[in-house]
Amino acid sequence: MLNLGEKDGSVVQHRTVGSTPSRSWRTWLIGRPLPTADAPHQTVGKAIGLAVFASDALSSTAYATQEILFVLAAAGTMAFGAVFPVSIAIVILLAIVTISYEQTVHSYPGGGGSYIVARDNLGELPARTAGAALMTDYVLTVAVSMSSGVAQIVSAYPALFDYRVHITVALVMFVMIMNLRGVKESGRAFAVPTYFFIASMYIMVGIALFRYLTGSLGAVPSPPALEAAHALRTLTPFLILHAFANGTSALTGIEAISNGITAFKEPRTHNAGITLVWMSSILGSLFLGISFLSKHIGAIPSEYETVISQLARTAFDGKGLPYLCIIGATSVILIMACNTSFADFPRLSAMMAADGFLPRQLTYRGSRLVYSRGIIALSLIASILIIFFDASVTGLIPLYAIGVFLAFTLSQAGMARRWWKIGRLQPGREVKERGSTLRYEGGWKAKMIINGFGAACTAVVMIVFSVTKFFEGAWVVLVLIPLLVLLLRAIHKHYQQLARNLSLEGFGQPPTILRHRIIIPISSVHQGTLAALQYAQMLSDDVTAVHVSIDPEESARVHQQWETWGQGVRLVILESPYRLFLEPLLQYIDEISSLRRPNETITIVVPQFVPKRWMHNVLHTQTAMMLRLVLLFKRGVVITDVPYQVG
Amino acid sequence: MLNLGEKDGSVVQHRTVGSTPSRSWRTWLIGRPLPTADAPHQTVGKAIGLAVFASDALSSTAYATQEILFVLAAAGTMAFGAVFPVSIAIVILLAIVTISYEQTVHSYPGGGGSYIVARDNLGELPARTAGAALMTDYVLTVAVSMSSGVAQIVSAYPALFDYRVHITVALVMFVMIMNLRGVKESGRAFAVPTYFFIASMYIMVGIALFRYLTGSLGAVPSPPALEAAHALRTLTPFLILHAFANGTSALTGIEAISNGITAFKEPRTHNAGITLVWMSSILGSLFLGISFLSKHIGAIPSEYETVISQLARTAFDGKGLPYLCIIGATSVILIMACNTSFADFPRLSAMMAADGFLPRQLTYRGSRLVYSRGIIALSLIASILIIFFDASVTGLIPLYAIGVFLAFTLSQAGMARRWWKIGRLQPGREVKERGSTLRYEGGWKAKMIINGFGAACTAVVMIVFSVTKFFEGAWVVLVLIPLLVLLLRAIHKHYQQLARNLSLEGFGQPPTILRHRIIIPISSVHQGTLAALQYAQMLSDDVTAVHVSIDPEESARVHQQWETWGQGVRLVILESPYRLFLEPLLQYIDEISSLRRPNETITIVVPQFVPKRWMHNVLHTQTAMMLRLVLLFKRGVVITDVPYQVG
Repeated sequence: MLNLGEKDGSVVQHRTVGSTPSRSWRTWLIGRPLPTADAPHQTVGKAIGLAVFASDALSSTAYATQEILFVLAAAGTMAFGAVFPVSIAIVILLAIVTISYEQTVHSYPGGGGSYIVARDNLGELPARTAGAALMTDYVLTVAVSMSSGVAQIVSAYPALFDYRVHITVALVMFVMIMNLRGVKESGRAFAVPTYFFIASMYIMVGIALFRYLTGSLGAVPSPPALEAAHALRTLTPFLILHAFANGTSALTGIEAISNGITAFKEPRTHNAGITLVWMSSILGSLFLGISFLSKHIGAIPSEYETVISQLARTAFDGKGLPYLCIIGATSVILIMACNTSFADFPRLSAMMAADGFLPRQLTYRGSRLVYSRGIIALSLIASILIIFFDASVTGLIPLYAIGVFLAFTLSQAGMARRWWKIGRLQPGREVKERGSTLRYEGGWKAKMIINGFGAACTAVVMIVFSVTKFFEGAWVVLVLIPLLVLLLRAIHKHYQQLARNLSLEGFGQPPTILRHRIIIPISSVHQGTLAALQYAQMLSDDVTAVHVSIDPEESARVHQQWETWGQGVRLVILESPYRLFLEPLLQYIDEISSLRRPNETITIVVPQFVPKRWMHNVLHTQTAMMLRLVLLFKRGVVITDVPYQVG
Repeated sequence: MLNLGEKDGSVVQHRTVGSTPSRSWRTWLIGRPLPTADAPHQTVGKAIGLAVFASDALSSTAYATQEILFVLAAAGTMAFGAVFPVSIAIVILLAIVTISYEQTVHSYPGGGGSYIVARDNLGELPARTAGAALMTDYVLTVAVSMSSGVAQIVSAYPALFDYRVHITVALVMFVMIMNLRGVKESGRAFAVPTYFFIASMYIMVGIALFRYLTGSLGAVPSPPALEAAHALRTLTPFLILHAFANGTSALTGIEAISNGITAFKEPRTHNAGITLVWMSSILGSLFLGISFLSKHIGAIPSEYETVISQLARTAFDGKGLPYLCIIGATSVILIMACNTSFADFPRLSAMMAADGFLPRQLTYRGSRLVYSRGIIALSLIASILIIFFDASVTGLIPLYAIGVFLAFTLSQAGMARRWWKIGRLQPGREVKERGSTLRYEGGWKAKMIINGFGAACTAVVMIVFSVTKFFEGAWVVLVLIPLLVLLLRAIHKHYQQLARNLSLEGFGQPPTILRHRIIIPISSVHQGTLAALQYAQMLSDDVTAVHVSIDPEESARVHQQWETWGQGVRLVILESPYRLFLEPLLQYIDEISSLRRPNETITIVVPQFVPKRWMHNVLHTQTAMMLRLVLLFKRGVVITDVPYQVG
């Protein structure tokens, strides 16, 4: 029941209006809206957790070896021998990063993404940098994984090669819609393909190794042609570093677990930590196995057939069912790998928006309780990249992983600094930070060294990366990230200044308004004009109607009709020799406005014609609309639309 | 000086604000704005008049013969012999139409376009039909003439063939800009190319005829390949009628003079009449000459080389300077031919808009005193057609000329009816119609028969046209014109109904407003909110603030701050379980609105955030804007934006 007329005790009244969102095409596409109370509080165990968070990291085994080979190819097929040593170096790096992240997981039970760790320990600039780096990389993860997934499919069905860009973009849109729906039961849905992938990869690697040991593993039958470099180069240390840098793309996705700790069952840091170790072990062993075998079967890196496809073909002797299983499992896990970005990018951008670094709208959860705007933004930017790079993994890879390693470095450095802070604390004291609570811990020095070493290693890799791949495309990212950081800062400044300007701190009541002047622009005299006039007269006694004269005949008619209907209200007719409407009116309002005394308000009452059907708007000049857009920027002028609907 | 405060004798006050339009890129493109007083009142004599109005008609000699040949080609090159007889038939039709239009020119000294003649004599439906037919054809004239002009250029420089669509569209844009500037000195500028064209065509035809008579005119050297039909057809009467229909495109543009009579010097009907005869004579003789010669030199219709080009090449023995003169003159006159449409289409649409058949905005004259919107509309539609038809004259021709002949028929029928009305008048009496004045004239019967015969002939041609070219594309126009007629009627109905609804006839003053209820939606409490609150309190004592609660924390803060700053105004907090903002608010307003008593007004006062820079809008949810769009459609609800600018 509404009882607005009476005043009851309190001036504040709570009401629930039963407005369920209306059904529309969006309901059909992404499902019925969910009330806020439905927010999921589901947690997962280690087995499901591995499935949910590992797809991104594990999927990189599908392209890491190949990307190393692509670089080595510049020195001819003989150089392919270097693939295994390079892979061993990468696995060592993987171990360092894993140990380093183990500590992060235990320190940030509420989730310790690079942005949070950098923000709490290093300050605003490193936090913004980590944020920018991560956002760049999430976008690239979607582009690279999806392109690689489609490359697997194309290897099996070469006829699809010409449609790879279309297929890739369509898949991005599909994953976007799935995420807009909100993947509630994602855990279980993820488990099947992830474990299927792990199992089938181990089987393939196992069989191939067995055949290798028994001497029955031959070379790839009819391998794709080697896209020969212009001139063969020698295997310089630079080339090896370059190959190493390309291979480090295997490490992307490692940070996923540290972002998602809250999703694990209690004891969650324990569970998350163990899952991280599992994940790294599987990743490392598969990657080593694939690199070793690729060299021995003489796999050739190619846009037309992936190394995985060549290996599967060789291990299983042709494109039989086992081959198709491998290709299918690889494609699916690559497509699922995007999902990590789809989970993390919107969450990160919402967090940064809440901190005032990104537009506030990103904090808004859509009808399905997901950060829909972040999801859509991610899909669009990734799709543009895919189209721009023709869905080529090799084209995208030079841009990739720099952001991840920058974020790794900042995160590990932040952790090191956190240990240092912990070392200064008195035992028993607690310091609450935004992302975690600091307590003194024994052995902080060792832990600080571990994280510090991790930071140093990833920093070196990042530099190697930037230098070796600079001209191939890494420069784009090296330019983009600083620009993003600047943009984040500008946004932050805007919000801060706004908050200061609007703050009620030390703010007295605004001065009372003493005089209220009203201007009604009219183009002709009709029922709508009179309704606006009457409304204006209700507001104030000081009303002036203004008519801009473009056509003298029309003006004469207005003049004459005003004598009858104007109720004695003053009418000013503005001559407009250049047939302009807005400009003379604005100039008049400016004049009045400049004569305005303090405590005086000017209101423009605009009779706004509203046709019954939207289409009919085409038949009417939208002067009221234009007037409003322009007047909004005038200080101290209020705009009122008095609509008159006619059917 | 402003003295708005004091009341002087009259309530109506005239003022001139010195607002000259500001300079911008538009000034650069189309020139400085012109005041209304500058409207041109220039008139032209017969020689310049011929140049201005004849380009459209004369230019059709450039393609009419070729389009006849294209049809005859279906029956093989032997059938080309029919081109001369068919051309003679067309010239006879030309004579009939010319005589018929002579009478129109003398009857409508104020301009006697088909629309006016049909409107004054036949009624609204025929007027609308004539209007729709003419508009269709003006668009096609631009598309056909421009494409044909470019085809001439391409004949001379075959390398440009692949760019013909780009060139054609670019030329349309060029002519558009010229017309947006307002072609003030058009007369003289037109005279040179038109007379150059006439002279060079006569010279070419003369030389070729002389060489033919002396036996030295050979066949076309290396003519373009004949694009052979699938199977040769015999020369049926249908094919001949079809060829005839294609050739009647030569008659398009004949009506231009009757539209533009006011542009002639006094005695203007006399001058216009003579100019019309000149024009038809030149057109007829050139067309006959070209058709005769084309047959004799064995010219082949082709997309790659125009018949004019083949004829010039043969007459002048190769692509020397004389050849280039002919091609240049033909291209220029074809491009200029568009100008007739650019003059007539905007004028016709402004006239129809003033009568309420088209959107009123078309009556507005732009900064250069031309009907800029009509000019832009014409250019865009013509460009789309050109792109769609690949700038192919042969592709466009089946759509062409139906509209013109429909307009011819209606115009002549209207004239016949006018003579009939004149025949009923008593001598000495005058009847004023909108377009002309009726006085009794002797010999009205003969004149009625002449116009009636003209109408019958053009009607027959139109039917021949529709039937023979139906499947080639004429059906498009035959579907389009009735649709356009219906659209014009719908627009007219809308304006009529609107005028009735807004009419002040028998309208008393609106009832006085007794109660004024105000609702302020607020999302948080800050200086902007308080400014809006204060404004609302000035308007009425009955103010309610409404907060839609999406985030409970935010709502609690609003609640608490309201206690301090709310000045005792009631605050309603609406729970929104689905995180919707607009819907609960609208539902609340609906409830209040449904309880509204008569003489009660509801005003929604929206605090509207206005950032200093337009770009910053991206950082703010545009709820005020959305709210306004939705509320506009609610009856009896006024929307007020109280802007708060922050920098």
